[in-house]
Amino acid sequence: MNEGMKQRDHVVIIGSGFGGLFATKALKDAPVDVTVIAKTNHHLFQPLLYQVATGILSEGAIAPPTREILRGQRNAQVRLGEVIDIDIESRTVTSWTPRGTQETPYDSLIVAAGSSASYFGHDHFAEHAPGMKSLDDALELRGRILSAFEFAEIETEADARASWLTFVVVGAGPTGVEMAGQIAELAHRTLRKDYRRIDPQQARVVLLEGAPTVLGTFGEHLAAKATKKLEQLGVEVQLGAVVVDIDEYGIDVKDSDGSTRRIASRTKVWAAGVASSPLAKHLANQAGLQVDRAGRVPVEDDCSLPGFPEVFVIGDMMEAGVPGVAQVAMQSGKHAAKVIAARAAGRDLPEPFKYVDKGSMATISRFAAVASVGRFRFSGFIAWLFWLVIHLLYLIGFKQRVTTLLHWTISFIGRGRAERAITRQQVVARRALNTLTPDQSGRPDRLRFPRR
Amino acid sequence: MNEGMKQRDHVVIIGSGFGGLFATKALKDAPVDVTVIAKTNHHLFQPLLYQVATGILSEGAIAPPTREILRGQRNAQVRLGEVIDIDIESRTVTSWTPRGTQETPYDSLIVAAGSSASYFGHDHFAEHAPGMKSLDDALELRGRILSAFEFAEIETEADARASWLTFVVVGAGPTGVEMAGQIAELAHRTLRKDYRRIDPQQARVVLLEGAPTVLGTFGEHLAAKATKKLEQLGVEVQLGAVVVDIDEYGIDVKDSDGSTRRIASRTKVWAAGVASSPLAKHLANQAGLQVDRAGRVPVEDDCSLPGFPEVFVIGDMMEAGVPGVAQVAMQSGKHAAKVIAARAAGRDLPEPFKYVDKGSMATISRFAAVASVGRFRFSGFIAWLFWLVIHLLYLIGFKQRVTTLLHWTISFIGRGRAERAITRQQVVARRALNTLTPDQSGRPDRLRFPRR
Repeated sequence: MNEGMKQRDHVVIIGSGFGGLFATKALKDAPVDVTVIAKTNHHLFQPLLYQVATGILSEGAIAPPTREILRGQRNAQVRLGEVIDIDIESRTVTSWTPRGTQETPYDSLIVAAGSSASYFGHDHFAEHAPGMKSLDDALELRGRILSAFEFAEIETEADARASWLTFVVVGAGPTGVEMAGQIAELAHRTLRKDYRRIDPQQARVVLLEGAPTVLGTFGEHLAAKATKKLEQLGVEVQLGAVVVDIDEYGIDVKDSDGSTRRIASRTKVWAAGVASSPLAKHLANQAGLQVDRAGRVPVEDDCSLPGFPEVFVIGDMMEAGVPGVAQVAMQSGKHAAKVIAARAAGRDLPEPFKYVDKGSMATISRFAAVASVGRFRFSGFIAWLFWLVIHLLYLIGFKQRVTTLLHWTISFIGRGRAERAITRQQVVARRALNTLTPDQSGRPDRLRFPRR
Repeated sequence: MNEGMKQRDHVVIIGSGFGGLFATKALKDAPVDVTVIAKTNHHLFQPLLYQVATGILSEGAIAPPTREILRGQRNAQVRLGEVIDIDIESRTVTSWTPRGTQETPYDSLIVAAGSSASYFGHDHFAEHAPGMKSLDDALELRGRILSAFEFAEIETEADARASWLTFVVVGAGPTGVEMAGQIAELAHRTLRKDYRRIDPQQARVVLLEGAPTVLGTFGEHLAAKATKKLEQLGVEVQLGAVVVDIDEYGIDVKDSDGSTRRIASRTKVWAAGVASSPLAKHLANQAGLQVDRAGRVPVEDDCSLPGFPEVFVIGDMMEAGVPGVAQVAMQSGKHAAKVIAARAAGRDLPEPFKYVDKGSMATISRFAAVASVGRFRFSGFIAWLFWLVIHLLYLIGFKQRVTTLLHWTISFIGRGRAERAITRQQVVARRALNTLTPDQSGRPDRLRFPRR
């Protein structure tokens, strides 16, 4: 704030996920200028990512361009860039694209960079069991899953064929349950009559979970319902099963009785854990704080970084005793925006951030879901209808809603899937990308060496 | 044919494009078994590839799985594989996938492997100006085109920004005209209000053509109509302009007066020429024939390889005085199938192959197209409606027709485009794939050394 004419504050928001987007929108009428810096050009509707991975939806249906969403918000601009440095003393964000590095000063900062798959220290799992966090992940898994059936069809040796027809999903939270259910429906319904040498109905789908129940946060009743429905679909639910190792040909599992066994499988999906963006540790180091086991940084009750009231850390990146779900990201993003708006307007600050649990839900197959809202538990068709309406409402953009509804009609009423083309990028890209040295990709690697 | 019980002949068809697919379908009732071997899992509706490249359509809309199309044809099976060898003496096809090599014997063979972009000996153009022949090409171009606007938005230097906002399409046949028109509509209509620092309406779209006219095969009248419409859209049509060199930053052009100049442009599209699959030369070598300049092999008047009446070469691969268009592929594929079916059933052989020109058309923008059918010439809205109906009719699959119609509504009535998400694969994959050595990709390289 200068003497004389008051300058508008500049708010930088890192990330275009639920947190970043809802924070930006909540600043629409605030007397500030907002710059969103994100490493993708789109907002990703993560709850439906499994439908991209299993060929129901196209990328565009769940990933509208962020700048299109914010087209009408005149105080917001969007910039492509991967943030590689935040200097909270000089209040500067450094972002990188293949076309150069840029420094952006801020008055207030909202860090909403989210999380990525965590392999609990076993980083070599990543190559064999992609996570489910980005469009690239989903497209790669789509390519792997559909290719597996193609390779099974041309495989002449029985054991090898069986391993192509065995799909293992690690982790039975909502994403894992939804992936397992959809792979089963793909194999047993969509592909049923498409092959001549293999019978896709013989495909095994194994859902591995280290805990003693699926959907741990949904309670015993819904967990039992979900397990029953998954088994009806032909999914093998294996509980108390901890992954020991993963390689190209299979997965080693330790059961609760201490014995180990191997599942021969060429296609593995990782839905077992996430860790915060490394930006959380980068901030913690500068603020003299420790991150928790999931890499999250502790925050004040207004979601700000302790000692730095102009820096907010929200969603999956904050350690605040709340789950890593979309609702937390949305609500904490809005809260940070409210604090910034109140300060800019000289109004009273809002009450401390309090997460309001609006419930959770997971689909298992078409026409079957489980939902937990307040004290109520739904399952079956009613829960599925509820899931459908809520997801259509929360999807961003009219175009996306219409195309999604059409593709759901194709997949749930019919038995087809609109997106079954395998591209070479999907199949080869991950390996190719992994062979790029940091030098070839051009990306500086400053984040690995935080300055303090 | 054995004595005693007659065995059914085995027909192998290489390729799942228009030629391979129409040949397979035409063998539906013939007393033969058909194996389609293709290197993609999908049939590609190439005439709409430019709409995938410019964000109107998703991959699935123009690329249904080949095995889904042929699900109901009980005498046909589909196998993934890239054909790396054809031995026309022992009648064996060798195909390769990352999972192994397979040999397939045949009684009759239809080679319908199509064509790919030709850079007339300048292979280094490929990295900077992708062609428009596969889904991967289209997705890569989509990523490049949409990224160019993102990079322009963060670019601070005026010349560099201008080169990000300059798009050059090389070749003014139907594909080039359609690409140029759609890039112009994307920039000037869809993206108009999405940016804060750049004005997408300032984007330059340059259409380069070495010949003195666009759409050379359509005649003077329609060429003039198309040129006028392109210029109304803001496309700079540059005729008599021959490409001398292409690099990352621009393109060197030689004009008809002999002078050379440079266009600074970061995004180039190659729509200038195609060459037959190298399988044509492989066959020609074995049969003691010469391929023509486009790499095509001469055929008999029944589309068979001279000296090998059981081997048919069709579509873009055959030298038969016909253009390289979808109709030729369909008709020659059907013709080869008829010959095979007649022989298998012991019926009279059909008349020699004769291409029936059903006309040609190109869209320039929404509501504007040119079409040439027999002696008739259409342009404007009528031609566009005609284009729309014909393309919907020829699109394979009900799902594809419905989703395409929906996306056209979004793009032509509205001004949006449903597929604007940029993935990392699209932007980085080509460079990454190029760094793979043959050894890393695992693909044997026998085709480069034809055996005779």
